[in-house]
Amino acid sequence: MKNTMKITKPTLLLDEAKCRQNMRDMFVKAQKNNVIFRPHFKTHQSLEIGSWFKELGVDKITVSSLEMAEYFAGQWDDITVAFPANILEIETISELAEKIHLSLLIESIDTINFLKKNLKYQAGFFIKIDVGYHRAGILPADHDTIDSILSLAGDSDELIFKGFLTHTGHAYSCRSTEEISGLYRTVKEQLLHLKKAYREKYPGLIISIGDTPSCSVVSDFSGIDEIRPGNFVFYDLMQYYIGSCTLDQIAVAMACPIVAIHETRKELVIYGGGVHFSKERLEDEKFGTIFGQVVEKKGNAWGNLIPGIYVKSLSQEHGIVEVPKTRISQYKIGDILLILPVHSCMSANLMKRYLTTDGWVVERL
Amino acid sequence: MKNTMKITKPTLLLDEAKCRQNMRDMFVKAQKNNVIFRPHFKTHQSLEIGSWFKELGVDKITVSSLEMAEYFAGQWDDITVAFPANILEIETISELAEKIHLSLLIESIDTINFLKKNLKYQAGFFIKIDVGYHRAGILPADHDTIDSILSLAGDSDELIFKGFLTHTGHAYSCRSTEEISGLYRTVKEQLLHLKKAYREKYPGLIISIGDTPSCSVVSDFSGIDEIRPGNFVFYDLMQYYIGSCTLDQIAVAMACPIVAIHETRKELVIYGGGVHFSKERLEDEKFGTIFGQVVEKKGNAWGNLIPGIYVKSLSQEHGIVEVPKTRISQYKIGDILLILPVHSCMSANLMKRYLTTDGWVVERL
Repeated sequence: MKNTMKITKPTLLLDEAKCRQNMRDMFVKAQKNNVIFRPHFKTHQSLEIGSWFKELGVDKITVSSLEMAEYFAGQWDDITVAFPANILEIETISELAEKIHLSLLIESIDTINFLKKNLKYQAGFFIKIDVGYHRAGILPADHDTIDSILSLAGDSDELIFKGFLTHTGHAYSCRSTEEISGLYRTVKEQLLHLKKAYREKYPGLIISIGDTPSCSVVSDFSGIDEIRPGNFVFYDLMQYYIGSCTLDQIAVAMACPIVAIHETRKELVIYGGGVHFSKERLEDEKFGTIFGQVVEKKGNAWGNLIPGIYVKSLSQEHGIVEVPKTRISQYKIGDILLILPVHSCMSANLMKRYLTTDGWVVERL
Repeated sequence: MKNTMKITKPTLLLDEAKCRQNMRDMFVKAQKNNVIFRPHFKTHQSLEIGSWFKELGVDKITVSSLEMAEYFAGQWDDITVAFPANILEIETISELAEKIHLSLLIESIDTINFLKKNLKYQAGFFIKIDVGYHRAGILPADHDTIDSILSLAGDSDELIFKGFLTHTGHAYSCRSTEEISGLYRTVKEQLLHLKKAYREKYPGLIISIGDTPSCSVVSDFSGIDEIRPGNFVFYDLMQYYIGSCTLDQIAVAMACPIVAIHETRKELVIYGGGVHFSKERLEDEKFGTIFGQVVEKKGNAWGNLIPGIYVKSLSQEHGIVEVPKTRISQYKIGDILLILPVHSCMSANLMKRYLTTDGWVVERL
């Protein structure tokens, strides 16, 4: 739907060209490396944006909840839910398993036992491996637990072992491409070790990695079988600070009206708060804690960061933007600021839709 | 709608009895003090919960966006939008002004000028005063700006001056009832000073205060004309830490399934992340940064905090809960944890509905 109205309240702008380029870049990289490309759709949560992947030839996706799996299942028939299987949702799991090629994440004996008894249709499962992030997963050296899970699943017709899966969430603490590459090497080493130990018994097993920083920075995925990055479709300020994208690659910006100007405090009050951006924060060396950075307008889209202008605090609907004394007089009430969010996944989750820089409304879950 | 299903995924539980008691307590306090009670509905954003106020006799409300004003305008005809008037939404402002008794917030000459030229129907306005929070508003000593706004509005038929309004957001930095009371006194002093200066020319002007900490802790509102607290309907962990409520008064808790258990790390992985709680955080003296605290189950509702069990981190869908070594063995996968959120307004905004502890689903905007 073409949008002909002007922006009057916080609106998440999407630069479709940048987004499609990010998709293409990752797709080409996956092809070159001969790895399965299973992008994570939790970032955009949109059938329409998902269809842009389809145009490239992608046919497998990742999501982070069964709700998202249900939403995408109408158009995608091979979905991995990259979240520890929640046994309380067994009915939804069975319904999805009947309908599509569903894969689950397993990291405990109790869960595999439960699924063995209660799952009604065939589903794949990955064993989630904790490669150092220590959020979820089994430690790679814990072959006892891995063996128990595999042995329990072994005599089930419904549970098909797919391989080992990990998410290098600690890549988000990196602050350079070198750090990310170094971390990737240690992760890969652990996974290859596991693959070696189990491939004789399970010759079809794959190893699957998932974080945007590694997938963006590393160019050689030899040894890896599948990549599942998600955030790269939009990127954001966090990824820029980590070193996984350039500023030019960031494909979303929040458009926020200026509702008040406080020259003596060098601050603008914007309509745009925690219910739009989330309260995701970033530590900037110079500014301290920030919640977004302001970029220049460039046609219907945006260009570079404007030096020294950033979101310093957020409440429910308000944002406070710090502006150097020399620049504040150029703003007036009713102007729209374009702001790169700290974490695009969280901002996209809060907003109900996107407005492309070409004027189209894109809906999401 | 009675909910007969069991909880299978993150669900925001609402203890209706506690919520109604919180409403009653504040209503009675307002009556005793003979102040106008105009509760802020940004916390619950629900027509049904709003109707509980109606049963008490409340007929005036506050909201923080025009979108909320439109949602509530079907059932409430006296609404203050406690957010600096956004001139870009003039059409919505005019539509609402035609339909209900609408009041706006003004803190700049440009905005009042714009409204004077473009507002089509009569609306009230408050001048927003910055009593030290330094987010929005005019400093109380800045009579020049106040006079300019009043003079511009003076010859407009559409703009009716209502009084001075403030939000003591810095009460959220307090950590005791004494601190809150002390802050309240300085705020009140500034407002009474303003009232004195302007009441001769505007005998009907009122002064309106708005934060839950002050409204909860202070018992004598003499001199104040209107209170607009919002969060008190639910309260939350933040208010408990500030000292504005008891634990017993907290009326919402997030029910989250346990999806993995890591005994060696003394951690539970729950289904419940930033898309449910928001990433609002709190500094606890003992635990450091926390994102929620776990409470005991008590029938269909909840009781006390369980010592030493708290949410230590959140990602998009996952939460990590720290549990003392001696207690972790009592949990199993598929159990539901009940968690008091740090900031109930943000959690309620993220969730689509409430489930009351009596089993009813309550919808919101």
